[in-house]
Parts: sequence; structure tokens; C-alpha cells
Amino acid sequence: MDEILKKRGSILVKDVIVNKKRSNVFIGENGKIEELGEDVGTKFQNKAEFVIEGKSAYALPGFVNTHTHAAMTLLRGYADDMQLQPWLSDKIWPLEAHLTAEDVYSGTRLACIEMIASGTTTFNDMYFFMDAAARAVDETGIRATLAHGFIDLSIKEKLESEIVATENFVRSIKSRNNPRIKAAVGPHAIYTVSEVGLRWCSEFAKNEEICIHIHLSETEGEVNDSVKAKGKRPPEVLNDCGILTDKTIAAHCCWLNIEECSLLAKKGTHVAHNPVSNMKLAVNKAMPYQWLKNAKTNVTLGTDGCASNNNLDMIEEMKFAALLQKFASNDPTILPADEVLKMGSAAGASALGMGATSIAVGQPADIILIDPEVPMNTPIHNPVSNLVYSCNGSVVRTTICDGRVLMLDRIIPNEQEIRDEAKISAKSLVERTLI
Amino acid sequence: MDEILKKRGSILVKDVIVNKKRSNVFIGENGKIEELGEDVGTKFQNKAEFVIEGKSAYALPGFVNTHTHAAMTLLRGYADDMQLQPWLSDKIWPLEAHLTAEDVYSGTRLACIEMIASGTTTFNDMYFFMDAAARAVDETGIRATLAHGFIDLSIKEKLESEIVATENFVRSIKSRNNPRIKAAVGPHAIYTVSEVGLRWCSEFAKNEEICIHIHLSETEGEVNDSVKAKGKRPPEVLNDCGILTDKTIAAHCCWLNIEECSLLAKKGTHVAHNPVSNMKLAVNKAMPYQWLKNAKTNVTLGTDGCASNNNLDMIEEMKFAALLQKFASNDPTILPADEVLKMGSAAGASALGMGATSIAVGQPADIILIDPEVPMNTPIHNPVSNLVYSCNGSVVRTTICDGRVLMLDRIIPNEQEIRDEAKISAKSLVERTLI
Repeated sequence: MDEILKKRGSILVKDVIVNKKRSNVFIGENGKIEELGEDVGTKFQNKAEFVIEGKSAYALPGFVNTHTHAAMTLLRGYADDMQLQPWLSDKIWPLEAHLTAEDVYSGTRLACIEMIASGTTTFNDMYFFMDAAARAVDETGIRATLAHGFIDLSIKEKLESEIVATENFVRSIKSRNNPRIKAAVGPHAIYTVSEVGLRWCSEFAKNEEICIHIHLSETEGEVNDSVKAKGKRPPEVLNDCGILTDKTIAAHCCWLNIEECSLLAKKGTHVAHNPVSNMKLAVNKAMPYQWLKNAKTNVTLGTDGCASNNNLDMIEEMKFAALLQKFASNDPTILPADEVLKMGSAAGASALGMGATSIAVGQPADIILIDPEVPMNTPIHNPVSNLVYSCNGSVVRTTICDGRVLMLDRIIPNEQEIRDEAKISAKSLVERTLI
Repeated sequence: MDEILKKRGSILVKDVIVNKKRSNVFIGENGKIEELGEDVGTKFQNKAEFVIEGKSAYALPGFVNTHTHAAMTLLRGYADDMQLQPWLSDKIWPLEAHLTAEDVYSGTRLACIEMIASGTTTFNDMYFFMDAAARAVDETGIRATLAHGFIDLSIKEKLESEIVATENFVRSIKSRNNPRIKAAVGPHAIYTVSEVGLRWCSEFAKNEEICIHIHLSETEGEVNDSVKAKGKRPPEVLNDCGILTDKTIAAHCCWLNIEECSLLAKKGTHVAHNPVSNMKLAVNKAMPYQWLKNAKTNVTLGTDGCASNNNLDMIEEMKFAALLQKFASNDPTILPADEVLKMGSAAGASALGMGATSIAVGQPADIILIDPEVPMNTPIHNPVSNLVYSCNGSVVRTTICDGRVLMLDRIIPNEQEIRDEAKISAKSLVERTLI
């Protein structure tokens, strides 16, 4: 194994293309980009502890996956092609009821290497046993915002235990003092969290100055049930409870109307688009991108969990996003390649306040190298079009996060051990569930 | 370079999973599967000229791409995110007007290695300079049915020259006497070919006993224009001209009504579904899979050309097919993973009468090995679900076609030379066009 994959040190990335220009990038030991330009190569040749030969690769900021449930990699392919309710109640929930902290650790580790292998350097996660998830993130070197999925089902005892769980988790993450890992508050959705619970989440997030991660208006049923039970549509419920803030990431948002798109923009709330999951689960409406864009809402991109996707490949997700929007709006010009690339990278970093928004001096060195020497990336009339419409995660050759090389020429340290452990966890989880 | 990539010989493929069972496969020098089973390994260990260690890979019949324009790889990413008409008239057609036979050769070679790298062993092509395409197919070792795109625009001189071109091309392919390459007749569509032209194509295909490859009901405009000009919808026009046969592959078919789905079934006509192209070009309707399935029409899968996809990855296409059908019909149970896998392989081989429909004794050895040791294919609760929903073309480790190894452990002979040549062709094509 290459030394560069084992330890931190200053790095010279030679001969890459950054914003259409041939460049060299010097990354300091602090994990930030210190210099960038054509002449940086000779200047830093001797200063850098490590040198990466870029071989004319395209260098991009790492992708930011703003909505996933990472440990659900263990459930990949366990149940598909089913109606939503039996899928959840007969398949997904029984398995999740048997999840342990060790499962979440091994599932999240698998998710982390899958993301590293496909160019994602930051993700926004909501699940259970999140201390175990934090351990996986810490060890694999990726960045994440982690939230304990807060579900009180309007039961007083559950509300109290979720408050304690959330408080403990946020304290635990803060005590790690790892700049790559942030805590968020994760009220699951309006149909699983009471208004008292939502208000507590809002207040707590405000006091702690951390993000809120929530599901919003994913299905028509969610909207109809809300109107029936509360006389209000979901965004209004969230707004009344103080959940719509400029540190909130709302996932899905398929069933927003035009006024709700403006409301989110006004509140500075970020949207996580999940086109693959929405198509696979047949939610019957595409997120209204044009309305959100017109309102100037920040739209980001997420894969959702592996039970409903079934991978974490942000390049594939970008293609699905662009094509779903074109198909659903009957307009091939909507969501062009450069917009969806931004959605999958800089927009997500802005939403989470974490990671790189560009490759520039002073930015965190979250850098991926895209291989120009593969058939699906040949010829290159337009590198962004190729990336979005022709490539997939396998074109990512090298992944750097926070100035540390997590994958070099497709080699990820401990990959096999992590895969083997995940296989054992997944098998045992199914066995325990089916007994 | 491994000997096995250079020459033909008997092959023992050891330790693979075929139809859920651990097996070994013995491929004879004639390119067919001679033996298959758990004990074949020891029996043929010394008889086989070559041995491939399967390492528990899943062995599947190669994918069959039933609608593409292979040489359009040269146009990959040249123009995207545009309205259909300006895209065609300002971008695609001007470039195509400058295409030479050498361009088609190098573009098709690029397409062939891209297909081999993503597990496709047979494709159905329609384009220009098809003798050059045949040369590329011949050399790269893949299977193809090739058609000269017949376009007469109702002009008498053009009709005559297209007849000559088609006759010459079919004669030329037959004289090659290469069982991997077949000719088809390629009337482009009802809006580019006169009824006289269509009737000639039907008669000629019947006499030559070869397939017909045509575009059908891709857009609403095509249907409306047909009704306006001829008082008939496109399938009726084709039927009246004898084009709907059991050797016909009709691409797209988005705007078929329920009666037309039954008509195609009755005639034995095969449909090529092209979900990525249909979404990217925003044709505003998904191919009516449920109607076609109910009518028992044979539905196959194609990528369309790289100008409107922009790759040739059949695994990605399968995911798009399954998800588009679910989304468009608001039913997550429609087109499950096993059905779409069949659509992308056996159904296509049946339609073209070419390639393998399964891995079985006597079948042509068109075999691909799927890597089980990658993060996106871990864990494996269901290998077919993983393949369709989680993987992409990069999980194909080895590709065998007609008993010849075209890719071994991701190595394709001459890959770099083929990519380099295609880059030069693409650059020169754009330069010639923009002068």
C-alpha cells in the first residue's frame, strides 16, 4: 500500500485540468489548497511530501450527497419492486428492528468506501446508532453531517427518549472535535414526529447552531394526511414549528406547490432532490425544479438510502436528476449538465456549510480526479456533459478529502476487509430477522 | 497481453455462478458451450487450451443492445440540453453531413470497445457507411446486425440510390460470410421514407430473409403528422407497407396506443425500448410497457446513439427502464429486476436471432462475468437486483463473445489505440464542420 494512503502530508497534484485550465495543485498539511496554477509544479516539486501524477485528469470538488441513510447499504437488494406499504412493513422495518450499533458501523463503513470510490467526499446522513456511524466516518476519512433519526410517533415517552438521544448524540459529536464530522438534528418527517417534537428540534438546533435534516412532501399521501389531520400542508406545519430555517435540508419535496417553493426560498431552506428514489418508489411527481429555481431556492442532490436506490453513485444520480426533470417537464433544456453538476457538489457544500465549493486557494482540499482515458469519456467535446450523461462513479480515479488521499488510482485501504465485514453483518441481520 | 486475448481456443471458465449454481463452463473451439456443471472443472482441466479463474463471479449471457447508432460515439457530448429541432438541424445534422467512412469505422470501433467493457456482446445498428462499421465489428470480435439507414425523403432519385445502397450493403455483408455479422434493412422512419420506399424495404427483407430495423412512434409530432398527411397513425402505415413482421425491430414506440400494442404482438414485431434517450429528449410519454406485456409483444432494450444517451451502458439502461416504467405508471411493482434483465439480454437475442439467450450447453458462448467483489455489489441478497439497481457497466470483469475473450479482467486489446484514433476523428470532424 502506498504511503500516501496511510498518512497525512503536503501533496502536489500535478498535471490536472481545473476550470478548463491545465494546473498543478499544492495541498498543505492543514488539508487546504495553498497554491494553484500552471507554474506551481516546479515551485513545489521539492516541498511536497507526496506527488500525485494527474495525467491530464479533470479535477473537481468532491460530490456532496445531501440525503442518505448510509448504513442501509446492508439492505441493498433485500427487497425491491414492491408497493411502498408492504415493502416498509413486511421487509424494511422488520430488518431495521434487528439493527445493532455494530451493523450500523459496518454498513456505514461500506457506504463510506462506496462513496469514496464514486467521488463523494461529504454526505448528510440520518439513521440510528449514529455514534457508530461517526466512528465509521472518522476512520474512513470522509466528511459527514450526522443526525439521529428523531421519531416520537406522538408518544410522550418516545418524545422524551428521542430528546435525550438527540442531546447525547450532539454532545458526543461535539466532544469528538473532528472538523470532518458535524451533528445535525433529524426530525424524521411530519408524519412521525409530533408538533411538540418538531418545536423542540427547532429550538435545540437553533441553540446548538446546527443543521436540521428532515423528509418533506415525498408522497401525495403525506400531503393529504397532513391536510386531513392538521388542516395544513406539510411545509406550513414545518414553518409553524420553526423547522424551515437556512440551516435546514428538506429531502424529496416532490409534492411542493409553487407557493411552497417560494416559502422555502424565503426561509433559506435547502432542498435535497432524490430522483432515483422517487422514481423507484413511484411517488408520482417529480420535484418541481423550475419553480424552486425561479424562487432561487438552493437545490442540492442526494441518493437516499440503498434500500430505495440501490447505490450511492452521485454521477448516476446527476444523470437521473437531469433526465427526470426533462422528461417530467417535457423540456429537454431544463436542468442542463452544468447546473446538475453544481447541484451535486457546490450547492450541497453550501447547504451543509461543509466541504469544498470549488477548487481554489483557501478551499478545503476535497478533490476528485476524473479519468479522461476510458471509452465512455471519449471523445471529450464537453467534459461536464460527459461526466453527467456518459460517465458513472467508476471514472473517479482518485479521491482526496480534507487533504488526505482516500483513494489512489482506484485503491482504497482496507476495502476488502470492509466489504467482508459488511457481508457478515448483512447475513447475520437477515438470519436474526427471519428466525 | 495475455495469449487468450489474441487467439481463439477452447476455454474452461472455472468457479462461476450460473443460474444460482456454482459451475464451470467448457467452451469449445467452435465458440459454443460444450459442457456446464460443477464437475466440469476437473474433467476439462487438461483439455482446455485456456483457463479463466471465475473467482465466484456471476456468469450471464452478454447484453443485447437492440437499437443504436454506434458511430455516434464521435458526437458524444457535442450538443445536449437543447430543443429537438435546433439540436438536430444546428448541431447533429451538420456534423453528420461531414462524416466519412473512416469516421464511422473509428466511431464504431470506439462503440464496440465501450460495449465490450460494459458487457454487451450483440448490437443492432443503423447508420451510414455501414461497410466501415462492419469492418469495426469484424475486428473487435463483437456481434452485430447492421443496417444502412434508408432515407428517401420521397425523392425519386434518392429512393433509387437508397435501394442500390441497401442492395450493395446486404450483398457485401453476405459475402463476408462472418456468422457474427448480419445485415438488416433499415428504413429510417415513416417521416423520412416514402411508402414506395417502405414497400420496397419490406419486399427486399422478405426475399433476403433478414431483419428490418426502424424508428416508430417516438414523438407525438410523428403521430400527429402521420394522421394529418396520411389519415393513419404510424403503425397502420407500416402495416399497410408490410413493415410489421416477426423479423422487425421497432425502436422507441413511446406513443403507441393499446390497439397498436396488440397489432405489434399479432405481427410478432419486436420493440426496442430506449428509456434514456426518450427521457433526455423529453418525448413526453414512456413506452407503454404494461400494454405491450399484456399483449405479449417481445420488448427488448436499446441505448440509442451516444448523441442522445450519451453512453452505451446496458446496465444503466436497465435501471432507467425499470425506474421510468415505475415512475410513469405510478406503480413500483412494474418491470421488476428479473424482467428488465431479460429485456436487456435474451429478449434481444431472440429478436435478432443472434447471440445467446442463456448459458446452456449448445448455446453460443456469449458470456460476461460480473464482479461480486466491489462495494456497489456488496452485500448480495439478490444478484439480479444488485446488477440492475446498484451496478453499472464497470462491474463486468470479463467479456466473451462467440467463444473469444474480448475483455479479460477489464483489459481490452488495442483499447488505447482505438480511443486515440476516435479522438482524432472526432476533432477533425468538428473542425471540418465549423470551417
